[in-house]
Amino acid sequence: MKGLHTLPKSGRPPGSPLGLHRVVEPAGVLPQAAWRLNPDPEIWPDEVLIDVERLNLDAASFRQLREATGADPGAMRSAVLAIVADRGKMQNPVTGSGGMLTGVVREAGQDSPLGLKPGDRIATLVSLSLTPMAITDGLAAWDGRSEQVPCAGHAILFGRSIAAVLPEDLPVPLSLAVMDVCGAPALTHRVVSSAQTAPAGPVVAVLGAAGKSGSLSAAAARRAGAGLVIGVVPTEHEAHLLRAAALADQVVIADATDPIIVSEAVREAGGPADVTVVCVDVPGCEGGAILSTARRGTVIFFSMATSFTAAALGAEGVAADVTMLVGNGYSEGHAELAFDLIRSEPGVRQIFERRTT
Amino acid sequence: MKGLHTLPKSGRPPGSPLGLHRVVEPAGVLPQAAWRLNPDPEIWPDEVLIDVERLNLDAASFRQLREATGADPGAMRSAVLAIVADRGKMQNPVTGSGGMLTGVVREAGQDSPLGLKPGDRIATLVSLSLTPMAITDGLAAWDGRSEQVPCAGHAILFGRSIAAVLPEDLPVPLSLAVMDVCGAPALTHRVVSSAQTAPAGPVVAVLGAAGKSGSLSAAAARRAGAGLVIGVVPTEHEAHLLRAAALADQVVIADATDPIIVSEAVREAGGPADVTVVCVDVPGCEGGAILSTARRGTVIFFSMATSFTAAALGAEGVAADVTMLVGNGYSEGHAELAFDLIRSEPGVRQIFERRTT
Repeated sequence: MKGLHTLPKSGRPPGSPLGLHRVVEPAGVLPQAAWRLNPDPEIWPDEVLIDVERLNLDAASFRQLREATGADPGAMRSAVLAIVADRGKMQNPVTGSGGMLTGVVREAGQDSPLGLKPGDRIATLVSLSLTPMAITDGLAAWDGRSEQVPCAGHAILFGRSIAAVLPEDLPVPLSLAVMDVCGAPALTHRVVSSAQTAPAGPVVAVLGAAGKSGSLSAAAARRAGAGLVIGVVPTEHEAHLLRAAALADQVVIADATDPIIVSEAVREAGGPADVTVVCVDVPGCEGGAILSTARRGTVIFFSMATSFTAAALGAEGVAADVTMLVGNGYSEGHAELAFDLIRSEPGVRQIFERRTT
Repeated sequence: MKGLHTLPKSGRPPGSPLGLHRVVEPAGVLPQAAWRLNPDPEIWPDEVLIDVERLNLDAASFRQLREATGADPGAMRSAVLAIVADRGKMQNPVTGSGGMLTGVVREAGQDSPLGLKPGDRIATLVSLSLTPMAITDGLAAWDGRSEQVPCAGHAILFGRSIAAVLPEDLPVPLSLAVMDVCGAPALTHRVVSSAQTAPAGPVVAVLGAAGKSGSLSAAAARRAGAGLVIGVVPTEHEAHLLRAAALADQVVIADATDPIIVSEAVREAGGPADVTVVCVDVPGCEGGAILSTARRGTVIFFSMATSFTAAALGAEGVAADVTMLVGNGYSEGHAELAFDLIRSEPGVRQIFERRTT
């Protein structure tokens, strides 16, 4: 232990809200890019100390660990323990990815802006790949077979981290699934609310409306004053789910990767859309989304399969004067809005329960 | 040659305004997403046939070709010829990007809505990545050292393509360079005009302000009412160019790929920015742009080197509630605004002349 983190607690300057003061090596990078973080449980004044209860390893990391250890439970435990001991965070060195955690607030620094208090049961909404952490129970309670890892230890949140108090009225797996996609309904709500259209309200098309981010986005669009919500799904099965959930005024079946088919389907259902929300996690949906959107309308890309150049050049290539947004996983109040939707819209809850069990 | 394009010319149905009838493989996708187009010079009734004079390769593609060939002129020529022969269009298979061309209208189909007539000297404002084209001179006149490629051959415009007649008062290479990036100042102007900030006007940071899209964007930001324009450049040499051009109120030297360095530099120069415009054609600028931007501000990504996931996860990772736009190469009136800026702002013209000669 050397450098900044040996300063007596009372004499500490405020931490960097990004956690730069926790980076041990290499110097000067952001915590996510760092090889090693300092997980010292003595917090800086703007930090929060969490008693960890459970890690949710991300799917890519879990798969890699399983393959590397031959799925041997003891070897899995050793691998995770070694990573956290070496790096001061649970960032799989092969995949670069992390996951998230749940736990209980032990201590909130006096300058923490996160609004948490001791005893709050929370989930982190920033990746484990940038969260300082130490494990104290040797992962004795983990069977090594699930990406959900019971775990005792502590973790640190920075001034600019994101965490949400877990609702007491919802099962934890449901809450985690909601938090995972809560950026989508938040941005959809913001864009639809500010769309300048006819008094009847904007036409909103949601590609992939029977999925988790899609169903929340459809519900958010309606709440934000959409005049017409068009849900686009790939199959009759998903159309049935979406109709049963009653989240869209029009349900159409079309392949979102076929620009001509999907844009004609949206048009026939009452489009073109003033706002098109892309929640389909397959590549090649950029053209269809752009062509489904009205002149001076907005496309919101939430799918991580989106190609930046396909979107930029695709719009130019068809002379489409549309605004295209990169779906930001974070906006203020995003988790609150998503939880409110899942509580108040039985259709959304229905879709989530089908997809998380 | 088989299929649709062997129909006798007189018997052809109108072409798809999007050029779907020119897609050879894979079937059903838009021309931009296609691997191969049909560059047959027999036009459909709504098309226009162009005698190509010059290609302007986009910066990302040119850089990739230079690196892949070790900047050998013969290898550069062979690489471009092979791409166009294979694909029926000049779309770099690595970067996915194209560029634009200038030429003279040879024939305008009777149903073309573009308003062009034989003899018009034009530039295409849709990407080469979706423009059917053939090269007939082996690129003999290209030295392989410039992204402007003298070239004989033909190209096709669709009903919904965009082209502009070249201004007679400006040299062709200059006009071409302006049109290539005219989406950037247009979108910058629109975003800065509508930014809701203090009466003094929004703070605008332009990363790569001494480049072509960057200098036009800086000028557009000022015209749209920016209160402070911060130009970020990588070297003292570029800083000198930008100061001489007088397009920025503050000129700072910082590596745009280092998020901490660039965001601190922008802050010290009067930031964070309400609007950050990314015109740096190297990967890894997402984090710096996001951290340079104020809460509820906007980042406009014009660089084709932008990674969608780096932008989306980068903003979430630092809890940045910013709006992120995919730079659309097209908006109404974009060429007119850019030409107006280059005529009225000597600093912009100065930068373009240095960079196109």
